Amino acid sequence: MSEQTFGDATLASFAATLRFDDIPAAVVERTLDLYADWVGSALAGKGARPVEAIERFAQAMGPTLDSGAPGSAEVVMSGRASSPLFAALVNGAASHFAEQDDVHNGSVFHPAAVVFPAALALAQAHQASGREFIAACVAGYEVGIRVGEFLGRSHYKVFHTTGTAGTLAAAAAAGRLLGLDATQMLHAFGSAGTQAAGLWEFLRDAADSKQLHTGKAAANGLSAAWLAREGLTGARRILTGAQGLAAGMSQDAVAARLTDRLGERWALAETSFKYHASCRHTHPAADALQQAMRAHGLSADDIQAVTAHVHQGAIDVLGAVDVPQSVHQAKFSMGTVLGLIAVRGRADVNAFADAWRDAPVQAFRERVTMALDPEVDAAYPARWLGRVTLRTRDGRQLAGRVDVPKGDPDNTLSRDEIASKATALARFTGAADDAEVARMLTRIWGLAQAPAMTWLREAAA
Amino acid sequence: MSEQTFGDATLASFAATLRFDDIPAAVVERTLDLYADWVGSALAGKGARPVEAIERFAQAMGPTLDSGAPGSAEVVMSGRASSPLFAALVNGAASHFAEQDDVHNGSVFHPAAVVFPAALALAQAHQASGREFIAACVAGYEVGIRVGEFLGRSHYKVFHTTGTAGTLAAAAAAGRLLGLDATQMLHAFGSAGTQAAGLWEFLRDAADSKQLHTGKAAANGLSAAWLAREGLTGARRILTGAQGLAAGMSQDAVAARLTDRLGERWALAETSFKYHASCRHTHPAADALQQAMRAHGLSADDIQAVTAHVHQGAIDVLGAVDVPQSVHQAKFSMGTVLGLIAVRGRADVNAFADAWRDAPVQAFRERVTMALDPEVDAAYPARWLGRVTLRTRDGRQLAGRVDVPKGDPDNTLSRDEIASKATALARFTGAADDAEVARMLTRIWGLAQAPAMTWLREAAA
Repeated sequence: MSEQTFGDATLASFAATLRFDDIPAAVVERTLDLYADWVGSALAGKGARPVEAIERFAQAMGPTLDSGAPGSAEVVMSGRASSPLFAALVNGAASHFAEQDDVHNGSVFHPAAVVFPAALALAQAHQASGREFIAACVAGYEVGIRVGEFLGRSHYKVFHTTGTAGTLAAAAAAGRLLGLDATQMLHAFGSAGTQAAGLWEFLRDAADSKQLHTGKAAANGLSAAWLAREGLTGARRILTGAQGLAAGMSQDAVAARLTDRLGERWALAETSFKYHASCRHTHPAADALQQAMRAHGLSADDIQAVTAHVHQGAIDVLGAVDVPQSVHQAKFSMGTVLGLIAVRGRADVNAFADAWRDAPVQAFRERVTMALDPEVDAAYPARWLGRVTLRTRDGRQLAGRVDVPKGDPDNTLSRDEIASKATALARFTGAADDAEVARMLTRIWGLAQAPAMTWLREAAA
Repeated sequence: MSEQTFGDATLASFAATLRFDDIPAAVVERTLDLYADWVGSALAGKGARPVEAIERFAQAMGPTLDSGAPGSAEVVMSGRASSPLFAALVNGAASHFAEQDDVHNGSVFHPAAVVFPAALALAQAHQASGREFIAACVAGYEVGIRVGEFLGRSHYKVFHTTGTAGTLAAAAAAGRLLGLDATQMLHAFGSAGTQAAGLWEFLRDAADSKQLHTGKAAANGLSAAWLAREGLTGARRILTGAQGLAAGMSQDAVAARLTDRLGERWALAETSFKYHASCRHTHPAADALQQAMRAHGLSADDIQAVTAHVHQGAIDVLGAVDVPQSVHQAKFSMGTVLGLIAVRGRADVNAFADAWRDAPVQAFRERVTMALDPEVDAAYPARWLGRVTLRTRDGRQLAGRVDVPKGDPDNTLSRDEIASKATALARFTGAADDAEVARMLTRIWGLAQAPAMTWLREAAA
């Protein structure tokens, strides 16, 4: 049977043979945007208890190397250098902690947290060019998103798709950087898929497994690709076979999704940025308020009252939080989120940390109500419509509306907004100061011309 | 809800609190026998292509340390020292390669290949006493076997139980050595279970995943325990929860099996040694022939013809191999196996490698036939009865019979037989000479008195 006749092999061949020149310029630029956005999340893991535990594990079990030396890779949050395996592990764990990393809605999959850690580690260790890095990351996104779509909703009910599909995504990115041919890439997929794991059970106890899942997906995918280069063979049909991933862990897998418009549809470009640092159900109204305030040149003090017109799900999730008692609860308080937007102009991690209890924000919160809106509710969940009405102190009735939440592909972030978000995340944990982040981002946006991947941390450059 | 009221917690508590003094002396001795047997298999991985690939990965990604230094652990087949993670990874992969490692029939689980790598690595790194090591290994066996039984037959249809249940087994052994309390052990189980993986799909392509599964189960279980000590939390009901391991990967899980007679039933002692290096379907007849030859003082030349009275499955699997063309096929040739028993006195790895094509063995092979036996067939698979009849050159009709295959608990190996098997495995790969293996085994059988775990390799002791 030809390798071209089944999805696993077609997808592996695509990942192995994708060339930088095949990727549309807009997709290349979006890749750099997603990478820049990911760096902010990777810095945001610094100091987080589960992430620091994993970093201590990496220090105990792995080598500590000279920063920037060939064969070494960077733990972004600390600037420490280790082998690619441990850099991928820690960066994968770190970048999923703040819950500000990107998401592909259709596959319910967070590509950045698994693809960039694996690709960055090998690109640094092997001093790959910027273009090789970009092509590898695109391969990782295209593979991971399709595997997530293939595994389907039944899989997601029990399994954390970012952990499972993420292992394949990381293997694709790593394999592309290691120069695997199509046959080797299929072996890498086999070794990755047979390691794919991650159960939602931890949610019940609010346990720390989420970061373990992304860290291990990145590390295991990297391992699978590295071992394939060394000759370790894997199952050819690890996704679609009778004893493969879907057979064991899905009831509604559709093989055609693995190869959906490969090379024509760029799934990477469908990926959403997470903009505000609050519950996703507050985002449409936050965007709509911001739209209205900008359109009418309003300040917080100009506003007498706000009504957020929402879908039922928003009321179900957010309704319980009236007066938040913690910063975490504040992220589920519509009034607080709109208060931060109105008073501080943003609802990012620092705004929450600094100001969620400030008097003006609390006062604004008391002027916010939610109301179920039939149009908004009917459109949900396919579309997340943002609708607010507000009354100004001078008696005007105004409306704000946004049809696509900020960060989705049709309302994506500008590079200024990406930079602002990354800077805020780095500042929040003290992982890097504003100037250092600015220099990182300048280098990132020039990566397509970079002859070799530089380190993010300047001390190591 | 009390932690005592669900199986995950009861099992974790058992593993955390098991004391050496609670373990019956016969179970302690059997543990040492299984460990000695495992060392032979760990040495037998040397030179194997997939195992060497994993060892190169370990060398590239992990540290190379001074042998025997605190914090270091031993890669048995090479004598190299690394961190416990990589020693567990390589030893786990190595010891499952020759397919001579032990098996627990009821759970279809190979405990040695996952428990000893994790326990040995941490015992060496932390210079634990022999008794601590033994208690940890017993904890690993008791947990892993019960998790395998719990996951059931439906799980085994798609998943390699030694990879999945093995991750929990390794976590239990590692956690016991790290001194985890019951709560920490439950966290370790959570982190282990959410990493549990291993699909049978690789069998279709005869790919290398089997060694990856055991290596990763040992390494991931060790990681889970280490991270629990560092404060990483995991799901409390990773086995039985609504989004746990059984929910995602089994249709016939029975929670009561997790805690079946904990502390009274020693599942470790139910574990079988694999004695002959051939297909398991040849073992009963090989044992029966050996019994008859010993009882009657026969040599190969005394025997004119042998009939092996077998179950249908043996004919189905072995019938195809008439004149074997490779050493692998020779292991599925009843005539060759009985020929090696008759001519060489054993059918171990070296007998196969050296003599499967020798003229006397080939000549004996031609004098062997198989016949379906109603009694043997009816007893199978609950009992594997060994029955042969033979005609001597001097005209006698003799019978040989064994009711329990050599290596099962009711017909277990003597220490001489264990030593002989381990020596043969080490000699086969050249990993250690006979004298070195003998010295290793002497130290192993004295471990209950050892104040600190010594290294197996003398250069490092």
